[in-house]
Amino acid sequence: MFFIKLEPNDDILESLIKAITENSIRTGFFTAIGAIKTPNLGYYLLDQKKYKTITIEGNFEIVSCSGNVTLKDGTPMIHAHLVVSDQKGRAFGGHLLADNKISVTGEIFLVEAGAPLIRTLDDQFQLSLINLD
Amino acid sequence: MFFIKLEPNDDILESLIKAITENSIRTGFFTAIGAIKTPNLGYYLLDQKKYKTITIEGNFEIVSCSGNVTLKDGTPMIHAHLVVSDQKGRAFGGHLLADNKISVTGEIFLVEAGAPLIRTLDDQFQLSLINLD
Amino acid sequence: MFFIKLEPNDDILESLIKAITENSIRTGFFTAIGAIKTPNLGYYLLDQKKYKTITIEGNFEIVSCSGNVTLKDGTPMIHAHLVVSDQKGRAFGGHLLADNKISVTGEIFLVEAGAPLIRTLDDQFQLSLINLD
Repeated sequence: MFFIKLEPNDDILESLIKAITENSIRTGFFTAIGAIKTPNLGYYLLDQKKYKTITIEGNFEIVSCSGNVTLKDGTPMIHAHLVVSDQKGRAFGGHLLADNKISVTGEIFLVEAGAPLIRTLDDQFQLSLINLD
Repeated sequence: MFFIKLEPNDDILESLIKAITENSIRTGFFTAIGAIKTPNLGYYLLDQKKYKTITIEGNFEIVSCSGNVTLKDGTPMIHAHLVVSDQKGRAFGGHLLADNKISVTGEIFLVEAGAPLIRTLDDQFQLSLINLD
Repeated sequence: MFFIKLEPNDDILESLIKAITENSIRTGFFTAIGAIKTPNLGYYLLDQKKYKTITIEGNFEIVSCSGNVTLKDGTPMIHAHLVVSDQKGRAFGGHLLADNKISVTGEIFLVEAGAPLIRTLDDQFQLSLINLD
Protein backbone atom coordinates (compact mmCIF):
# COMPACT_ATOMS: atom_id res chain seq x y z
CA MET A 1 0.00 0.00 0.00
CA PHE A 2 1.27 3.46 -0.89
CA PHE A 3 0.36 6.92 0.41
CA ILE A 4 0.68 9.86 -1.96
CA LYS A 5 0.25 13.44 -0.75
CA LEU A 6 -0.61 16.24 -3.14
CA GLU A 7 0.25 19.88 -2.42
CA PRO A 8 -1.51 23.12 -3.44
CA ASN A 9 -1.32 23.70 -7.21
CA ASP A 10 -0.27 20.11 -7.91
CA ASP A 11 -1.91 18.73 -11.02
CA ILE A 12 -3.67 15.55 -9.90
CA LEU A 13 -3.01 13.30 -12.91
CA GLU A 14 0.59 14.50 -13.38
CA SER A 15 1.39 14.01 -9.70
CA LEU A 16 -0.13 10.56 -9.65
CA ILE A 17 1.85 9.47 -12.70
CA LYS A 18 5.04 10.86 -11.14
CA ALA A 19 4.48 9.00 -7.85
CA ILE A 20 3.55 5.78 -9.63
CA THR A 21 6.60 5.93 -11.85
CA GLU A 22 8.94 6.67 -8.94
CA ASN A 23 7.55 3.67 -7.05
CA SER A 24 7.47 1.38 -10.13
CA ILE A 25 3.75 0.68 -9.63
CA ARG A 26 2.18 -0.98 -12.66
CA THR A 27 -1.33 -1.87 -11.52
CA GLY A 28 -3.59 -1.13 -8.56
CA PHE A 29 -6.51 0.95 -7.33
CA PHE A 30 -6.69 4.07 -5.21
CA THR A 31 -9.09 6.27 -3.28
CA ALA A 32 -8.49 9.91 -2.46
CA ILE A 33 -10.00 12.91 -0.72
CA GLY A 34 -8.91 16.53 -0.65
CA ALA A 35 -9.80 19.89 -2.16
CA ILE A 36 -9.65 21.19 -5.73
CA LYS A 37 -10.00 24.47 -7.58
CA THR A 38 -12.17 24.89 -10.66
CA PRO A 39 -12.52 21.18 -11.51
CA ASN A 40 -12.53 19.97 -15.12
CA LEU A 41 -14.89 17.00 -15.17
CA GLY A 42 -15.19 14.67 -18.13
CA TYR A 43 -18.40 13.22 -19.53
CA TYR A 44 -18.08 10.66 -22.31
CA LEU A 45 -20.27 11.42 -25.30
CA LEU A 46 -21.28 8.02 -26.65
CA ASP A 47 -22.40 9.38 -30.02
CA GLN A 48 -19.24 11.44 -30.59
CA LYS A 49 -16.89 8.89 -28.96
CA LYS A 50 -15.03 11.58 -27.01
CA TYR A 51 -15.04 13.35 -23.66
CA LYS A 52 -16.82 16.64 -23.10
CA THR A 53 -15.17 18.92 -20.51
CA ILE A 54 -17.39 20.36 -17.78
CA THR A 55 -15.59 23.20 -15.98
CA ILE A 56 -17.06 24.47 -12.71
CA GLU A 57 -15.60 27.67 -11.24
CA GLY A 58 -14.70 27.92 -7.58
CA ASN A 59 -13.22 25.89 -4.76
CA PHE A 60 -14.58 22.41 -4.13
CA GLU A 61 -14.10 19.56 -1.70
CA ILE A 62 -12.99 16.32 -3.39
CA VAL A 63 -15.56 14.13 -1.65
CA SER A 64 -14.63 11.01 -3.60
CA CYS A 65 -11.92 10.18 -6.08
CA SER A 66 -11.40 6.57 -7.05
CA GLY A 67 -9.58 4.98 -9.87
CA ASN A 68 -6.97 2.56 -11.04
CA VAL A 69 -3.50 2.22 -12.51
CA THR A 70 -2.96 -0.02 -15.51
CA LEU A 71 -0.44 -0.33 -18.33
CA LYS A 72 -0.94 1.12 -21.81
CA ASP A 73 1.87 0.29 -24.24
CA GLY A 74 4.02 -0.56 -21.22
CA THR A 75 3.49 2.83 -19.56
CA PRO A 76 1.38 3.41 -16.43
CA MET A 77 -2.01 5.00 -17.15
CA ILE A 78 -4.51 6.43 -14.66
CA HIS A 79 -8.27 6.03 -15.02
CA ALA A 80 -10.16 7.84 -12.28
CA HIS A 81 -13.51 9.44 -11.58
CA LEU A 82 -14.22 12.09 -8.98
CA VAL A 83 -17.04 13.69 -7.05
CA VAL A 84 -16.68 17.26 -5.80
CA SER A 85 -18.96 19.42 -3.64
CA ASP A 86 -19.51 23.16 -3.37
CA GLN A 87 -20.30 25.50 -0.48
CA LYS A 88 -23.97 24.56 -0.59
CA GLY A 89 -23.06 20.87 -0.41
CA ARG A 90 -24.16 20.18 -3.98
CA ALA A 91 -22.25 17.33 -5.59
CA PHE A 92 -20.86 17.17 -9.13
CA GLY A 93 -18.91 14.39 -10.75
CA GLY A 94 -17.11 13.13 -13.80
CA HIS A 95 -14.04 11.57 -15.32
CA LEU A 96 -10.70 12.93 -14.03
CA LEU A 97 -9.30 14.88 -16.98
CA ALA A 98 -5.92 16.59 -17.33
CA ASP A 99 -5.61 20.06 -15.80
CA ASN A 100 -7.14 19.57 -12.35
CA LYS A 101 -5.29 21.32 -9.57
CA ILE A 102 -5.29 20.81 -5.81
CA SER A 103 -6.26 23.82 -3.66
CA VAL A 104 -5.46 22.64 -0.13
CA THR A 105 -4.34 19.01 -0.04
CA GLY A 106 -4.82 15.65 -1.70
CA GLU A 107 -4.59 12.42 0.30
CA ILE A 108 -4.32 9.28 -1.82
CA PHE A 109 -4.11 5.66 -0.68
CA LEU A 110 -3.10 3.24 -3.42
CA VAL A 111 -3.22 -0.55 -3.17
CA GLU A 112 -0.88 -2.30 -5.59
CA ALA A 113 -2.07 -5.38 -7.46
CA GLY A 114 0.09 -8.39 -8.19
CA ALA A 115 -0.49 -9.03 -11.87
CA PRO A 116 -0.45 -6.09 -14.29
CA LEU A 117 -3.61 -5.14 -16.20
CA ILE A 118 -3.19 -3.97 -19.79
CA ARG A 119 -5.22 -1.38 -21.72
CA THR A 120 -5.59 -1.44 -25.48
CA LEU A 121 -7.55 0.78 -27.84
CA ASP A 122 -11.17 -0.34 -28.12
CA ASP A 123 -12.48 0.23 -31.64
CA GLN A 124 -16.13 0.56 -30.68
CA PHE A 125 -15.65 3.38 -28.16
CA GLN A 126 -12.25 4.76 -29.22
CA LEU A 127 -11.18 4.45 -25.58
CA SER A 128 -8.29 2.60 -23.95
CA LEU A 129 -10.13 -0.20 -22.15
CA ILE A 130 -8.73 -2.97 -19.98
CA ASN A 131 -8.05 -6.01 -22.14
CA LEU A 132 -8.21 -9.37 -20.38
CA ASP A 133 -7.61 -11.45 -23.52
CA MET B 1 -7.36 -8.78 -4.65
CA PHE B 2 -9.56 -9.42 -7.68
CA PHE B 3 -10.25 -7.39 -10.80
CA ILE B 4 -13.64 -7.74 -12.45
CA LYS B 5 -14.40 -6.17 -15.82
CA LEU B 6 -17.94 -5.47 -16.93
CA GLU B 7 -18.93 -5.21 -20.59
CA PRO B 8 -21.65 -3.17 -22.33
CA ASN B 9 -25.15 -4.39 -21.37
CA ASP B 10 -23.86 -6.40 -18.40
CA ASP B 11 -26.15 -6.17 -15.40
CA ILE B 12 -23.95 -4.93 -12.56
CA LEU B 13 -25.34 -7.00 -9.68
CA GLU B 14 -25.71 -10.18 -11.75
CA SER B 15 -22.16 -9.90 -13.11
CA LEU B 16 -20.74 -9.25 -9.67
CA ILE B 17 -22.49 -12.29 -8.20
CA LYS B 18 -21.27 -14.43 -11.11
CA ALA B 19 -17.64 -13.31 -10.68
CA ILE B 20 -17.78 -13.74 -6.92
CA THR B 21 -19.24 -17.21 -7.20
CA GLU B 22 -16.67 -18.27 -9.81
CA ASN B 23 -13.85 -17.11 -7.55
CA SER B 24 -15.41 -18.53 -4.35
CA ILE B 25 -15.30 -15.11 -2.66
CA ARG B 26 -17.39 -14.97 0.50
CA THR B 27 -16.58 -11.58 2.01
CA GLY B 28 -14.79 -8.41 0.98
CA PHE B 29 -15.25 -4.86 -0.24
CA PHE B 30 -14.93 -3.31 -3.68
CA THR B 31 -14.76 0.01 -5.48
CA ALA B 32 -15.69 0.56 -9.10
CA ILE B 33 -15.89 3.17 -11.82
CA GLY B 34 -17.39 3.03 -15.28
CA ALA B 35 -20.44 4.14 -17.22
CA ILE B 36 -24.11 3.18 -16.94
CA LYS B 37 -27.33 3.66 -18.87
CA THR B 38 -30.56 4.81 -17.20
CA PRO B 39 -29.59 4.00 -13.60
CA ASN B 40 -32.11 2.61 -11.14
CA LEU B 41 -31.15 4.09 -7.78
CA GLY B 42 -32.63 2.89 -4.49
CA TYR B 43 -33.69 5.10 -1.60
CA TYR B 44 -34.78 3.33 1.57
CA LEU B 45 -38.12 4.60 2.90
CA LEU B 46 -37.83 4.31 6.68
CA ASP B 47 -41.56 4.60 7.26
CA GLN B 48 -42.48 1.98 4.65
CA LYS B 49 -39.45 -0.24 5.32
CA LYS B 50 -38.75 -0.73 1.64
CA TYR B 51 -36.72 0.73 -1.22
CA LYS B 52 -38.13 3.29 -3.61
CA THR B 53 -36.71 3.13 -7.16
CA ILE B 54 -35.43 6.35 -8.70
CA THR B 55 -34.93 5.92 -12.45
CA ILE B 56 -32.97 8.58 -14.34
CA GLU B 57 -33.00 8.42 -18.13
CA GLY B 58 -29.81 8.77 -20.12
CA ASN B 59 -26.15 7.84 -20.06
CA PHE B 60 -24.17 8.51 -16.90
CA GLU B 61 -20.63 8.18 -15.63
CA ILE B 62 -20.35 5.88 -12.61
CA VAL B 63 -18.25 8.28 -10.56
CA SER B 64 -18.27 6.11 -7.45
CA CYS B 65 -19.52 2.63 -6.67
CA SER B 66 -18.53 1.03 -3.41
CA GLY B 67 -19.88 -1.91 -1.55
CA ASN B 68 -19.28 -5.23 0.04
CA VAL B 69 -19.76 -8.97 -0.29
CA THR B 70 -21.18 -10.91 2.64
CA LEU B 71 -23.03 -14.19 3.16
CA LYS B 72 -26.80 -14.47 3.51
CA ASP B 73 -28.01 -18.03 4.20
CA GLY B 74 -24.65 -19.28 2.96
CA THR B 75 -24.92 -17.48 -0.39
CA PRO B 76 -22.87 -14.40 -1.43
CA MET B 77 -24.85 -11.16 -1.30
CA ILE B 78 -23.83 -7.73 -2.63
CA HIS B 79 -24.61 -4.48 -0.86
CA ALA B 80 -23.43 -1.47 -2.83
CA HIS B 81 -24.19 2.22 -3.31
CA LEU B 82 -23.35 4.27 -6.34
CA VAL B 83 -22.93 7.86 -7.50
CA VAL B 84 -23.51 8.74 -11.14
CA SER B 85 -23.09 12.01 -13.04
CA ASP B 86 -24.75 13.46 -16.12
CA GLN B 87 -23.53 15.61 -18.99
CA LYS B 88 -23.80 18.77 -16.89
CA GLY B 89 -21.71 17.12 -14.16
CA ARG B 90 -24.65 16.87 -11.75
CA ALA B 91 -24.33 13.95 -9.35
CA PHE B 92 -27.06 11.53 -8.27
CA GLY B 93 -26.79 8.58 -5.94
CA GLY B 94 -28.50 5.67 -4.27
CA HIS B 95 -28.52 2.00 -3.41
CA LEU B 96 -27.48 -0.34 -6.24
CA LEU B 97 -30.70 -2.12 -7.20
CA ALA B 98 -31.24 -4.94 -9.68
CA ASP B 99 -31.53 -3.96 -13.33
CA ASN B 100 -28.60 -1.58 -13.78
CA LYS B 101 -26.71 -2.01 -17.02
CA ILE B 102 -23.24 -0.96 -18.10
CA SER B 103 -23.02 1.31 -21.16
CA VAL B 104 -19.27 1.39 -21.89
CA THR B 105 -17.25 -0.42 -19.23
CA GLY B 106 -17.16 -1.28 -15.55
CA GLU B 107 -13.84 -1.61 -13.69
CA ILE B 108 -14.12 -3.24 -10.29
CA PHE B 109 -11.35 -3.90 -7.75
CA LEU B 110 -12.37 -6.24 -4.96
CA VAL B 111 -10.37 -6.92 -1.80
CA GLU B 112 -11.20 -10.24 -0.15
CA ALA B 113 -11.54 -10.43 3.62
CA GLY B 114 -10.34 -13.33 5.71
CA ALA B 115 -13.31 -14.10 7.93
CA PRO B 116 -16.79 -14.22 6.41
CA LEU B 117 -19.43 -11.69 7.46
CA ILE B 118 -23.00 -12.93 7.77
CA ARG B 119 -26.27 -11.08 7.06
CA THR B 120 -29.55 -11.95 8.76
CA LEU B 121 -32.98 -10.36 8.51
CA ASP B 122 -33.31 -7.38 10.83
CA ASP B 123 -36.86 -7.14 12.22
CA GLN B 124 -36.83 -3.39 12.81
CA PHE B 125 -35.92 -2.39 9.25
CA GLN B 126 -36.88 -5.56 7.32
CA LEU B 127 -33.43 -5.48 5.77
CA SER B 128 -30.63 -8.05 5.67
CA LEU B 129 -28.07 -6.44 7.96
CA ILE B 130 -24.61 -7.68 8.94
CA ASN B 131 -24.91 -9.67 12.15
CA LEU B 132 -21.80 -9.74 14.34
CA ASP B 133 -23.41 -11.74 17.15
CA MET C 1 -8.42 -5.46 7.21
CA PHE C 2 -11.10 -4.53 9.73
CA PHE C 3 -14.86 -4.40 9.49
CA ILE C 4 -16.72 -1.88 11.65
CA LYS C 5 -20.51 -1.88 11.92
CA LEU C 6 -22.41 1.21 13.02
CA GLU C 7 -25.85 1.02 14.62
CA PRO C 8 -28.80 3.47 14.53
CA ASN C 9 -28.00 6.71 16.39
CA ASP C 10 -24.26 5.98 16.45
CA ASP C 11 -22.18 9.09 15.87
CA ILE C 12 -19.95 8.24 12.88
CA LEU C 13 -16.71 9.95 13.97
CA GLU C 14 -17.03 8.91 17.63
CA SER C 15 -17.73 5.29 16.69
CA LEU C 16 -14.83 5.19 14.26
CA ILE C 17 -12.41 6.58 16.86
CA LYS C 18 -13.68 4.05 19.42
CA ALA C 19 -13.22 1.09 17.04
CA ILE C 20 -9.79 2.30 15.94
CA THR C 21 -8.62 2.77 19.50
CA GLU C 22 -9.91 -0.65 20.57
CA ASN C 23 -8.05 -2.27 17.68
CA SER C 24 -4.87 -0.16 18.14
CA ILE C 25 -5.04 1.04 14.51
CA ARG C 26 -2.75 3.98 13.85
CA THR C 27 -2.93 4.49 10.09
CA GLY C 28 -5.04 3.23 7.21
CA PHE C 29 -7.86 4.09 4.86
CA PHE C 30 -11.52 3.08 4.82
CA THR C 31 -14.63 3.11 2.66
CA ALA C 32 -18.18 2.97 3.98
CA ILE C 33 -21.80 2.90 2.92
CA GLY C 34 -24.98 3.15 4.97
CA ALA C 35 -27.70 5.62 5.87
CA ILE C 36 -27.63 8.88 7.83
CA LYS C 37 -30.09 11.35 9.32
CA THR C 38 -29.76 15.11 8.81
CA PRO C 39 -26.11 15.16 7.71
CA ASN C 40 -23.76 17.93 8.77
CA LEU C 41 -21.41 18.43 5.83
CA GLY C 42 -18.27 20.55 6.03
CA TYR C 43 -17.01 22.95 3.38
CA TYR C 44 -13.63 24.55 3.98
CA LEU C 45 -13.68 28.33 3.53
CA LEU C 46 -10.25 29.17 2.14
CA ASP C 47 -10.53 32.87 2.96
CA GLN C 48 -11.68 32.31 6.55
CA LYS C 49 -9.50 29.22 7.12
CA LYS C 50 -12.33 27.31 8.77
CA TYR C 51 -15.12 24.87 7.96
CA LYS C 52 -18.65 26.00 7.25
CA THR C 53 -21.37 23.54 8.33
CA ILE C 54 -24.02 22.60 5.77
CA THR C 55 -26.96 20.88 7.48
CA ILE C 56 -29.53 19.09 5.30
CA GLU C 57 -32.73 17.89 6.98
CA GLY C 58 -34.06 14.40 6.36
CA ASN C 59 -32.92 10.84 5.85
CA PHE C 60 -30.17 10.16 3.34
CA GLU C 61 -28.31 7.22 1.88
CA ILE C 62 -24.55 7.37 2.51
CA VAL C 63 -23.57 6.64 -1.08
CA SER C 64 -19.86 7.13 -0.48
CA CYS C 65 -17.75 7.74 2.58
CA SER C 66 -14.00 7.48 2.28
CA GLY C 67 -11.22 8.64 4.48
CA ASN C 68 -8.15 7.81 6.45
CA VAL C 69 -6.72 7.30 9.92
CA THR C 70 -3.52 9.09 10.89
CA LEU C 71 -1.82 10.18 14.09
CA LYS C 72 -2.03 13.72 15.50
CA ASP C 73 0.06 14.23 18.65
CA GLY C 74 0.18 10.45 19.03
CA THR C 75 -3.62 10.06 18.95
CA PRO C 76 -5.63 8.57 16.03
CA MET C 77 -7.42 11.16 13.94
CA ILE C 78 -10.03 10.59 11.23
CA HIS C 79 -10.20 12.60 8.02
CA ALA C 80 -13.14 11.60 5.86
CA HIS C 81 -15.45 12.99 3.20
CA LEU C 82 -18.91 11.73 2.37
CA VAL C 83 -21.55 11.82 -0.33
CA VAL C 84 -25.21 11.41 0.58
CA SER C 85 -28.34 11.17 -1.57
CA ASP C 86 -31.97 12.07 -0.98
CA GLN C 87 -35.27 10.53 -2.07
CA LYS C 88 -35.02 12.17 -5.48
CA GLY C 89 -31.52 10.73 -5.92
CA ARG C 90 -29.84 14.13 -5.64
CA ALA C 91 -26.32 13.92 -4.25
CA PHE C 92 -24.69 16.22 -1.69
CA GLY C 93 -21.23 16.02 -0.23
CA GLY C 94 -18.70 17.46 2.16
CA HIS C 95 -16.21 16.90 4.93
CA LEU C 96 -17.32 14.52 7.69
CA LEU C 97 -17.85 16.79 10.70
CA ALA C 98 -18.73 15.86 14.28
CA ASP C 99 -22.39 15.20 15.01
CA ASN C 100 -23.42 12.91 12.16
CA LYS C 101 -25.66 10.06 13.18
CA ILE C 102 -26.50 6.76 11.50
CA SER C 103 -30.18 6.10 10.74
CA VAL C 104 -30.19 2.44 9.65
CA THR C 105 -26.68 1.00 9.43
CA GLY C 106 -23.09 1.88 8.64
CA GLU C 107 -20.76 -0.67 7.03
CA ILE C 108 -17.09 0.27 7.14
CA PHE C 109 -14.12 -1.62 5.72
CA LEU C 110 -10.75 -0.34 6.92
CA VAL C 111 -7.37 -1.37 5.53
CA GLU C 112 -4.51 -0.85 7.96
CA ALA C 113 -1.22 0.61 6.72
CA GLY C 114 2.17 -0.49 7.93
CA ALA C 115 3.94 2.75 8.71
CA PRO C 116 2.07 5.46 10.64
CA LEU C 117 1.33 8.81 8.99
CA ILE C 118 1.57 11.91 11.18
CA ARG C 119 -0.51 15.11 11.02
CA THR C 120 0.79 18.48 12.21
CA LEU C 121 -0.77 21.92 12.14
CA ASP C 122 -0.28 23.64 8.81
CA ASP C 123 0.19 27.39 9.28
CA GLN C 124 -1.08 28.39 5.85
CA PHE C 125 -4.48 26.69 6.14
CA GLN C 126 -4.80 26.26 9.92
CA LEU C 127 -5.57 22.59 9.28
CA SER C 128 -3.93 19.39 10.52
CA LEU C 129 -2.30 18.11 7.35
CA ILE C 130 -0.25 14.96 6.80
CA ASN C 131 3.41 15.77 7.30
CA LEU C 132 5.89 13.58 5.40
CA ASP C 133 9.00 15.47 6.54
